[in-house]
Amino acid sequence: MKLYDLEASGNCYKVRLFAALADIELERVPVDLANGAHKKPPLSEMNPLRQVPVLEDDGHVVRDSQAILVYLAGTYGGLAWWPDHARGQAEIVQWLSFAANEVQHSLSAARLVEKFGYPLDKEAALAKAPAVLALLDAHLETNDWLAMGRPTIADCAVYPYVVLAPEGSVDLGPYGNVARWMTRLESLPGYLPRP
Amino acid sequence: MKLYDLEASGNCYKVRLFAALADIELERVPVDLANGAHKKPPLSEMNPLRQVPVLEDDGHVVRDSQAILVYLAGTYGGLAWWPDHARGQAEIVQWLSFAANEVQHSLSAARLVEKFGYPLDKEAALAKAPAVLALLDAHLETNDWLAMGRPTIADCAVYPYVVLAPEGSVDLGPYGNVARWMTRLESLPGYLPRP
Repeated sequence: MKLYDLEASGNCYKVRLFAALADIELERVPVDLANGAHKKPPLSEMNPLRQVPVLEDDGHVVRDSQAILVYLAGTYGGLAWWPDHARGQAEIVQWLSFAANEVQHSLSAARLVEKFGYPLDKEAALAKAPAVLALLDAHLETNDWLAMGRPTIADCAVYPYVVLAPEGSVDLGPYGNVARWMTRLESLPGYLPRP
Repeated sequence: MKLYDLEASGNCYKVRLFAALADIELERVPVDLANGAHKKPPLSEMNPLRQVPVLEDDGHVVRDSQAILVYLAGTYGGLAWWPDHARGQAEIVQWLSFAANEVQHSLSAARLVEKFGYPLDKEAALAKAPAVLALLDAHLETNDWLAMGRPTIADCAVYPYVVLAPEGSVDLGPYGNVARWMTRLESLPGYLPRP
């Protein structure tokens, strides 16, 4: 099973982190984004959004980090990480949307500008960050994990751009519950440190 | 089962559309967003993101339009709309992320500025729209539906802000495959017209 991958990408780290925690073996195929490999075949055909990560499992292709988490957990990860009932799946999907929307357009966008020079509005991204982190912090005041009272792919989808947020000049200092949640996740067997 | 709802919201329309197509009965509870009802209890406690839609099913609360689609389809919709295997679920989640990220920050954002005066960057939103629609159009050149070769919640998550895009000054004219997909969806039994 191949993961088309970029070491510095938080979206790729979501997948690598989950695979490490769930003990799923991935063959990492580095993608040379600096030279536009994601804009040429075969990558551009595997993912018309021209992004990594992309997963290829015996010819079956999955794009989008959230979808790859669902695929890997549902196929190889067992029911602990992605349950087989709609109530639990929906509880997790709330956080997958939060990762794709709120986290992507605040913590991740600020880092993309600062670390990689992406032409995004860093001020707008930074302005959204405190509300995103405050919401997370409030949830984690009474919950050890994002969903279902245990580690799931919801945590793997949200943690990477939180732990990487200081690379976009976001201060995590005020969010003690978030810090304790990160420590819990970092203490899980198999934890893969951030890039 | 109660849907906390706003008629003009495309995110709420995703849920109403799916419920109509799958013949699921919802009690609509209008939320007075103009007077900030979403920022006060009980809504602010049901959804700390302070957004609609919110679903309440016998005391169980689900926020986020994509998560509500998963919950409704998985609980009441049968396997046609949301399958019980990870490969199909991941194929659909690709499009749920596309709805929460790419569609939300292009077609939906432009409409929020133009129709409701939201303080977002309309030029940036409009600049993203052609790539989003071109990607959709290319997919629909060889696919009748977004996922699994049949109507699923993926279509219900993406269609609303596409059909509403002209309200944000987005021209759908160049995208013939998108137009034919919309016509197919609008021909399904139970189809609920856009707000």
